Amino acid sequence: MADTTTYRLILIGFGAAGQGLARILRDRGSWLEQRYGVDLRIVAVCTRNRGTVYNTTGIDPAVLLDAVAQTGHLRNLPDQRDWAPEDMIERADADVLVELSATNLADGEPATSYVRLALENNLHVITANKGPIALHLPELRRLATEAQLYLGYEGTVMSGTPALRLAWSSLAGCEISEIRGIVNGTTNYILTQMEQGLSYADVLAEAQRLGYAEADPSGDVEGYDAAAKAVILANVVMNAHLSLSDVERMGITTLTRDTIEAARAAGERWKLIARVWREGEQVRASVQPTRLPLSHPLAGVSGATNAITYTTDLLGDVTLIGAGAGGTATGFAIISDILEMHLLWGR
Amino acid sequence: MADTTTYRLILIGFGAAGQGLARILRDRGSWLEQRYGVDLRIVAVCTRNRGTVYNTTGIDPAVLLDAVAQTGHLRNLPDQRDWAPEDMIERADADVLVELSATNLADGEPATSYVRLALENNLHVITANKGPIALHLPELRRLATEAQLYLGYEGTVMSGTPALRLAWSSLAGCEISEIRGIVNGTTNYILTQMEQGLSYADVLAEAQRLGYAEADPSGDVEGYDAAAKAVILANVVMNAHLSLSDVERMGITTLTRDTIEAARAAGERWKLIARVWREGEQVRASVQPTRLPLSHPLAGVSGATNAITYTTDLLGDVTLIGAGAGGTATGFAIISDILEMHLLWGR
Repeated sequence: MADTTTYRLILIGFGAAGQGLARILRDRGSWLEQRYGVDLRIVAVCTRNRGTVYNTTGIDPAVLLDAVAQTGHLRNLPDQRDWAPEDMIERADADVLVELSATNLADGEPATSYVRLALENNLHVITANKGPIALHLPELRRLATEAQLYLGYEGTVMSGTPALRLAWSSLAGCEISEIRGIVNGTTNYILTQMEQGLSYADVLAEAQRLGYAEADPSGDVEGYDAAAKAVILANVVMNAHLSLSDVERMGITTLTRDTIEAARAAGERWKLIARVWREGEQVRASVQPTRLPLSHPLAGVSGATNAITYTTDLLGDVTLIGAGAGGTATGFAIISDILEMHLLWGR
Repeated sequence: MADTTTYRLILIGFGAAGQGLARILRDRGSWLEQRYGVDLRIVAVCTRNRGTVYNTTGIDPAVLLDAVAQTGHLRNLPDQRDWAPEDMIERADADVLVELSATNLADGEPATSYVRLALENNLHVITANKGPIALHLPELRRLATEAQLYLGYEGTVMSGTPALRLAWSSLAGCEISEIRGIVNGTTNYILTQMEQGLSYADVLAEAQRLGYAEADPSGDVEGYDAAAKAVILANVVMNAHLSLSDVERMGITTLTRDTIEAARAAGERWKLIARVWREGEQVRASVQPTRLPLSHPLAGVSGATNAITYTTDLLGDVTLIGAGAGGTATGFAIISDILEMHLLWGR
């Protein structure tokens, strides 16, 4: 335990998740080293428009955070490089690619190419980006296994709340036959607010004003984000090979104040439920608004909180409830993958 | 992954948990071997009055289960030994002691002596017995560390639902500042039934008839069982050194139909809550009936189900809900510890 292993990290993207990770490293880097024997150093940060820095001995996370807080970018810092992310992956002295660029569910790019290139260049990969994992997991997993590298993606579902690790590691030995979850915080926030009697349009406008929903909200309200998470759950937890188009998907835009009030009057509640289940040899997945009795464990999950219920053979239902978004929570997901990597590969 | 490691198990006790473990090994022993590379063999079973068997090549779990189903004991099986558990621990060719004798919260005996002796005889130890873990964890952990042996006890809290592993492993890197849980199924069942308008005495009698409560129910209804779990949570998750007497404890026997109805009328619900929290440098623990608003994640946990909420710095509240008792669930806790042991020690 006295030994310390150093991991040099390349960050691609320095938005909420990257800054969350930097805050954790700033505030408890030495605690992590003392307690878990890992010395985590950000050696490079690549952003699209806010500068790209590289220093082989490590960049103080406090300096990165101060720069962003004061100027909104990293372009005034020393050690600037005019390298594209591909150059950084190929040229930097590093151990781990931390891929945190914006999610693209159309083709998973450019993140998927970065991940492939990193695995070809002997870097472990940790990502919170749903694109590569929802669209290309089998291929990326094969590449990582062949290269004997770690591929971590706990942050893609429920951000830092350890939903994948619970199923994959803590429930190892159980058969999981069904998964039901509230995996999109924006829609759950909207539904929770609509129960107070507000209209969909009013709540959406308020959510956009607060930054909970994007200007084009279709990724959330049409269920695409939840569908991507259903694919990840199906492929990771139930060993399926689903694509996004395999998910029966219905969003929440058809729910009115009246339908919500009708459920309430019947002692029930509408939730946007992602569901994955076995049907014979097949694994199927759906995302759709579902009326749940108030006694159901998922019915009480309100606001931006997420939750997943695993139905198992040996334990019955196991439900995990926690944060589903946020920079610090996603930053923690990265830390949590690093610690698992260290346990499996590092010692 | 093609390599298989054999673990030879000594079972002490063959009640609900031991039989649950045997059922899992009977039904999916070869699946566990294929999937996780562990060949798990019961080489010995010691019981107080129902026979003691030992066979160095392994005893078919189906044979053990059939014997108990047909005769209630193991005394007609071949390979009988008139050895005390101590003899078995010292003489058997084995790798792991699985300690499943009855819980004794007064002094943790005889289980604690068995665990000590096993660690002295180079056996890993896995137990679901709250006695040794609630009363003697620091000493036993030290012995195991010194001998470089595994000490597993996931089954002591929430049986197979991975409450300790969630905190210890999946939330590693977070600071946990408070734990609140419904960790005793019997009292939660009684409170849930009392909400239907039944009296404490009637519900208790019914619970005893169904086998949910013991003839002397004080261990459950006076909060001793929950207090033992609070001590384990404090010492394992928050690194404290509490004793059972440090827990402020109040049971549910003072709750009447009227107090329960008053809470219901106010939109609240009584739950027996085990709580562990930091107060300055100290860790404190209590068990007491607590009125929760219906919107609280623990308020919806009904019947014999258990739940624990961890309050963390990086993720906010993380809640785990699942089975808190049962032979199969506790058997799974043992399997789950074996798989962790294999990951850490076995390869």
